[in-house]
Amino acid sequence: MTTRIEPFKAIAISELAHRLKAEGKPVIHMEFGQPSTGAPKAAIETAHRVLDSDAMSYWESAPLRARIAAQYRETYGLDIAPERVVLTAGASPALLLAMLAGFEAGDRIAMARPGYVAYRNTSRAIHLQPVEIDCGPETRYQLSAQMLAEMDPAPAGIIIASPANPTGTILPPEELAAIAEVCKARGIRIISDEIYHGIAYDKPTPSVLEFDDGAFIVNSFSKYYSMVGWRLGWIIAPEDKADTVRAYRGNLFLTPPSLSQHAALAAMDCHKELEAHVQTYRANRAALLEALPRMGLSSIAPPDGAFYIWADIGHLTDNSLAFCERLLRDTFVATAPGLDFDPVNGHRFMRFSFAVSTPEVKEAISRMEPWFAALRGS
Amino acid sequence: MTTRIEPFKAIAISELAHRLKAEGKPVIHMEFGQPSTGAPKAAIETAHRVLDSDAMSYWESAPLRARIAAQYRETYGLDIAPERVVLTAGASPALLLAMLAGFEAGDRIAMARPGYVAYRNTSRAIHLQPVEIDCGPETRYQLSAQMLAEMDPAPAGIIIASPANPTGTILPPEELAAIAEVCKARGIRIISDEIYHGIAYDKPTPSVLEFDDGAFIVNSFSKYYSMVGWRLGWIIAPEDKADTVRAYRGNLFLTPPSLSQHAALAAMDCHKELEAHVQTYRANRAALLEALPRMGLSSIAPPDGAFYIWADIGHLTDNSLAFCERLLRDTFVATAPGLDFDPVNGHRFMRFSFAVSTPEVKEAISRMEPWFAALRGS
Repeated sequence: MTTRIEPFKAIAISELAHRLKAEGKPVIHMEFGQPSTGAPKAAIETAHRVLDSDAMSYWESAPLRARIAAQYRETYGLDIAPERVVLTAGASPALLLAMLAGFEAGDRIAMARPGYVAYRNTSRAIHLQPVEIDCGPETRYQLSAQMLAEMDPAPAGIIIASPANPTGTILPPEELAAIAEVCKARGIRIISDEIYHGIAYDKPTPSVLEFDDGAFIVNSFSKYYSMVGWRLGWIIAPEDKADTVRAYRGNLFLTPPSLSQHAALAAMDCHKELEAHVQTYRANRAALLEALPRMGLSSIAPPDGAFYIWADIGHLTDNSLAFCERLLRDTFVATAPGLDFDPVNGHRFMRFSFAVSTPEVKEAISRMEPWFAALRGS
Repeated sequence: MTTRIEPFKAIAISELAHRLKAEGKPVIHMEFGQPSTGAPKAAIETAHRVLDSDAMSYWESAPLRARIAAQYRETYGLDIAPERVVLTAGASPALLLAMLAGFEAGDRIAMARPGYVAYRNTSRAIHLQPVEIDCGPETRYQLSAQMLAEMDPAPAGIIIASPANPTGTILPPEELAAIAEVCKARGIRIISDEIYHGIAYDKPTPSVLEFDDGAFIVNSFSKYYSMVGWRLGWIIAPEDKADTVRAYRGNLFLTPPSLSQHAALAAMDCHKELEAHVQTYRANRAALLEALPRMGLSSIAPPDGAFYIWADIGHLTDNSLAFCERLLRDTFVATAPGLDFDPVNGHRFMRFSFAVSTPEVKEAISRMEPWFAALRGS
């Protein structure tokens, strides 16, 4: 097992970024997918109150499960029993639990390449067999119903993500419906990573549950709710799998952080504050979409949601890690090399995360623009 | 996979306890292994401060890793590089990571029966093969060097726990040394669960690392530091496995809760407050050790540490779950049935957790004593 998992390449960039920052350099962190804003005000206030009144034992919040279930009605018109909501210490353990409850050792799990690195590594850790499918601009870097219909043999499961990381692309409702239909017909179990729901710019983000009640949904408070370090996520388990997921959760993790559960319940009513973050991301995205082509980066995935831009830099380098490192050393703008997301073609891609402030994005652009110009001129 | 893991039986008792409490019944919670005290005062104060000043991103605290490493010097005289300390959201994910980094699918892992339920269930979840060894009073319910020497073939690994759950027994230093020697000679990798270190009554609790530098240590802030709901633990990884453990941690979990890391660093200097908790446990233990024989429970493991008493109730029942439920309904004292810890003999054992206040323990005794007397008389 010990040779199967590699550390994130982005960590090397991040460590260099922190070293440069410690030296006093004006580093702008666009390498990781995390909001630079903190939790909503009401969540912080709740946390202060709970800190002084609760000894914080092993606990899974029934009110939070009910509130999450209610939100599936409000947002998607879905009737989800609170018993199907299983709280976890983030989307990462949620993904692991869904895989454990949904699949058997050796099962083949299809996923788009590029995609979030943990999909393939977590699969491998528990002896599932990731089947990465090369997805390019023609399917917006997403799996398609047609690809799944043509897979022979059919995989046991798929992982889809919409909006996706690293591309930000959204699967349109009709494609999602078609994927669900193929999966139902071929007996393919869906895990849908919906962690970027709530962060979308023009398109709707339906839940897979609208089309397939047997899917596992993975989500968290880290992105839209801006509560990264609080480590809180959830699974919506299929009705017949909820007890299994909860039994795995109990054995592998016990319960999620107590304070975070209290704070998250408060955060779920902070839409005004949270929508302001989305407006910031919208402005950042517009600034980058305007600037990147000027910098010679014109082959990018359409960032329908999330806070990422996935850019082809194949005309500039065949070593994205070295490229990102050089960009960081020269301009103090930290970005993610493509290799974490795509071990085959990632050497010619990079990812910008624009979950920072708009002044930071503008400053980053003003530093990168001459750097890219010099690069093309050289 | 989906049939391998069962929910904790103690959860049924706990749920009944909470229902009774909601009905206004004076329930005393002795079913779970968690301090009823909260985090140390300085930890709470630190958390308040950090809440107002830190946006809490993905983060592993270097100061906390250094402080934990320093404590291995202070407590055990060991020189542990901070790079070997990997922080996790509790001892449960720490155990999982140690297993993933230390073993290959199919590996046989020996463990004492009775023992903590997650040892066997987490093993199974990642396709290791738990080998439960029946351990009775003659070895204080612990694995022995002799047992390990006689196993044929040798297992790939063992999990030991001292002080242990559910028994509270401690492996004496000479036995620990002998176990380490056998393991070294036979190529058996040790995972040592040292989560109850700091809670011991008369005996020393050496770390396995004093005898075997290649062991994985699992520990947490949930027991001695009384920070259960904060979900923070750590691994000391062998030098050649630290990078692997960290890569697994990154992929499977990202980082542990930020606020908890800040608070835990403060908690590590709160010995006076924490030692007072241990004194409470000491008083509780003495009260129970005095009362249980009067109640006809004279076959108990010697609770050298932790806050548990494992009692043989075979003369009273062959269904410990029904027994604990009846005790709870009649006296409102919640306890844990033995089945979680020992699927073979647990039907005739129960576990008392005395991590509550001394008045609660005394009240529990005053209710249980006539109940057990009536039972014997009937």
